[in-house]
Amino acid sequence: MNVIFGVDVGGTEIKIGKFIDDKLMVKDVIATDVSNSGNNILSDIFKYLKAHLQKDEKLLGIGIGLPGPVKGNKVLGAQNLGWKVKDVVSEAREYFPQTLIRLSNDANAAALGESYYGAAKGFKNVVMLTMGTGLGGGLIINGHIYEGNNGSSGEVGHICIKKNGRKCSCGLNGCLEQYVSATGIVNTALELRLNKDTLLNKNDLTCKDVFDLAKKGDKIANEVVEEATDDLAIGIASICNTLNPELVVLGGGVSKAGNFLLEKVVSKFEKYAFYSIRNTSFTLATLGNDAGIYGCFHLIKEYFDEN
Amino acid sequence: MNVIFGVDVGGTEIKIGKFIDDKLMVKDVIATDVSNSGNNILSDIFKYLKAHLQKDEKLLGIGIGLPGPVKGNKVLGAQNLGWKVKDVVSEAREYFPQTLIRLSNDANAAALGESYYGAAKGFKNVVMLTMGTGLGGGLIINGHIYEGNNGSSGEVGHICIKKNGRKCSCGLNGCLEQYVSATGIVNTALELRLNKDTLLNKNDLTCKDVFDLAKKGDKIANEVVEEATDDLAIGIASICNTLNPELVVLGGGVSKAGNFLLEKVVSKFEKYAFYSIRNTSFTLATLGNDAGIYGCFHLIKEYFDEN
Repeated sequence: MNVIFGVDVGGTEIKIGKFIDDKLMVKDVIATDVSNSGNNILSDIFKYLKAHLQKDEKLLGIGIGLPGPVKGNKVLGAQNLGWKVKDVVSEAREYFPQTLIRLSNDANAAALGESYYGAAKGFKNVVMLTMGTGLGGGLIINGHIYEGNNGSSGEVGHICIKKNGRKCSCGLNGCLEQYVSATGIVNTALELRLNKDTLLNKNDLTCKDVFDLAKKGDKIANEVVEEATDDLAIGIASICNTLNPELVVLGGGVSKAGNFLLEKVVSKFEKYAFYSIRNTSFTLATLGNDAGIYGCFHLIKEYFDEN
Repeated sequence: MNVIFGVDVGGTEIKIGKFIDDKLMVKDVIATDVSNSGNNILSDIFKYLKAHLQKDEKLLGIGIGLPGPVKGNKVLGAQNLGWKVKDVVSEAREYFPQTLIRLSNDANAAALGESYYGAAKGFKNVVMLTMGTGLGGGLIINGHIYEGNNGSSGEVGHICIKKNGRKCSCGLNGCLEQYVSATGIVNTALELRLNKDTLLNKNDLTCKDVFDLAKKGDKIANEVVEEATDDLAIGIASICNTLNPELVVLGGGVSKAGNFLLEKVVSKFEKYAFYSIRNTSFTLATLGNDAGIYGCFHLIKEYFDEN
């Protein structure tokens, strides 16, 4: 039996998918050990993989998604892991001297997963936005991940939508992420609820609360959603006016607001998109947290399909 | 002798380059006949090409740049020519039944020309901005033109940089083009010069005047330039945060302001670019009005190089 591992490395956990004869058969999660500048992370992964490979299985390759810019065999830095530049493939050689190992940025891996096994199946030019604590972007061009010159394509969370706007953790001002990530939407709610009669006035407000209350008709919650979806539409229009993709996929926790979110974004997009890209398709992601491991699996599969 | 024609079709004139054994040997210009819904344009071109081919010359192909979205053998509309969807290659068959004919959007053709024969020689991932009456963009990805899903990649002139900003001819508001094209810069000057003691108070003010007066130290002209380059930097940062190109090329009439423009844009770009793309290279275009015919030539040349 042929085995491919898809490994999606995050700042708190590492998702591992074992694909046997191209089918996802086992899913598992291990904790990310960020102690010691994250120097145990790779050995933890490779030891796990070695222990979970049976004698009668043939390992075709390991695809790894990482939370930082990736170029070829290297990640150029991953703050959440405590890493600076790291040659991941060289470090893997101690455990897997011959195995094909391919890397990708995690947002790009998720986009690739959705493109071949999820919401964007059949589409070759895709932009995926992952709206969680932050806002990540993945680009699929001609059916492949587009890394960009130094692995930093799809940093669309840092498109400036408001000159002198909110300060971003990246040091810039007015980044899209500050307005349309879960964190950004909650911040908008905290601003708009001040001195207002609204159900948003509760402790530990979450982005899910905002959308739930908006769906229930709360006026201020709806104002928050209108503002966030308008800002998101401006950002997506900037991306589409540049790239003219076939399809935009909305994923991540915020996208769980579903069609309520999607419909507002699509209608506002038309206000900001150049006429010839106004027919861009939109959809919600379908693979959820598995998008990354599917994309990492595909990094290996596409190699064998093409070589 | 092998001949390739590069034909750059504009709204007022058509530039034609005759490349003999890969060298540009003859340049010519014919007028664009926009009467009769532009229906004479293609026959004018093909008759000209037939008349300018000698008996001992072998025609390898014709590359054509067009002012509208191009997908494969068709232009999907070209307002300046009076065209709706037009199957250019089919229409060419009457004159050139067998010849290889390839099309491109004009901004993409200019980007391709600069990438192989001009300022971006040796670069494979390039964004070129053509700043003239309007603002066009061309994208080179992995050494090839990236058309986008329906030929509308690189419509970066219509990135919204100011919500509810100036009305654009495309119907949207706040488009980048309205602030950093020659027209946009003159409009900013007309706004800022009001009731001010400035040399900008002259009739028939041009974009060149603005830059010339700024270089001479006129205070208000410098304010105009600061504002325009800041807006341009925001737009370029949006593009680069999405695409992470190696190189940004500034071309078109506005770019004749030279290093005075370039240096301001680069320093302001750093204010708006995500840290990992801050090292993007910038340069001025070098092929001027010939970029398009070089790019159209290359459309044919790359085909023979690869097949």
